Amino acid sequence: RKRRPQDAAIEHELFVSLEDVFQGTEKKIKVTRTVVNPDGSSRIEEKILTVPIKRGWKAGTRVTFSQEGDQLPGRTPADIVFIIRDHPHPCFKREGSDLCFVAKIALRDALLGCQVTVPTLEPNVAIPIACNPVVSPGSTVTVPGHGLPHPKAPESKGDLIVKFDVIFPEHLSLESKELIGTALPIVN
Amino acid sequence: RKRRPQDAAIEHELFVSLEDVFQGTEKKIKVTRTVVNPDGSSRIEEKILTVPIKRGWKAGTRVTFSQEGDQLPGRTPADIVFIIRDHPHPCFKREGSDLCFVAKIALRDALLGCQVTVPTLEPNVAIPIACNPVVSPGSTVTVPGHGLPHPKAPESKGDLIVKFDVIFPEHLSLESKELIGTALPIVN
Repeated sequence: RKRRPQDAAIEHELFVSLEDVFQGTEKKIKVTRTVVNPDGSSRIEEKILTVPIKRGWKAGTRVTFSQEGDQLPGRTPADIVFIIRDHPHPCFKREGSDLCFVAKIALRDALLGCQVTVPTLEPNVAIPIACNPVVSPGSTVTVPGHGLPHPKAPESKGDLIVKFDVIFPEHLSLESKELIGTALPIVN
Repeated sequence: RKRRPQDAAIEHELFVSLEDVFQGTEKKIKVTRTVVNPDGSSRIEEKILTVPIKRGWKAGTRVTFSQEGDQLPGRTPADIVFIIRDHPHPCFKREGSDLCFVAKIALRDALLGCQVTVPTLEPNVAIPIACNPVVSPGSTVTVPGHGLPHPKAPESKGDLIVKFDVIFPEHLSLESKELIGTALPIVN
């Protein structure tokens, strides 16, 4: 038997938080479709589709629900596809299964040393990091195993990469400049 | 009269320096093609194609030489297309018609002020820039009109954007740290 013609899949973007990708969850999405009977009468059906968000899934992952589109006489309903997208996170950026965190530290702390506490996606877990001087702008520290789950082996996790943004004072007093002039060598 | 069938264009990438894009030039490229006669005999022809590189041309610009490919009986020779690409430059990156230059300055100079001399693509022209303290890492200064020519109006030019990379000392003596601790305020 020849298969009835089918329209191209209906694609929806589904934005998920990094917390959801970290822990895994499912999203219930209400969809409606029009069902047209052979006599031309029609009705609208509502349905809840449950989209799994598995641990560590990457943006671009596609979840297909077969033949959930409009039902028209003589045609196969289209598939509905959800494409997973990352919702921007206020603290982290993901790079593959690694998480990047930008730690802003003051120039004084970069030169004299400090400790920063870095958040993670695990509830109530933050990692103290000793920043030994001198911390250069843009330098990074890697905290292994505190990134996102690897999608194919979610027991293991990527890394948390801490990048230091060194905040300079807006201006310095003449006295401060003199002290700094003595403290820092002249480089050629 | 029906046109004879033609193969897809033969594409070559042509890497050009930013200096060439700045000044405009032309490149002579030797190409060879096989000419097959109706009796089956063939010969190889050499030819020099002159590719113009106009001022400010962007990477991706295509220059087409019509029907310069192999000549086969009953067929239209293919076109030869050169696609302009940027050869990486040791000093500059281009962003549209702007040029970016990274100026490395020492932490001392960033905090106390300094002057840097920034090269340009114009022969023997360098621009002195006064860096008033405090120069934050990643901050930029724009020098108008010292970028690449605008491709559609090459008399006018884009900007030269100078980005400061602040180089920290690798370590500091205890004495230097004490002076810096006095000079820089504690920030919370």
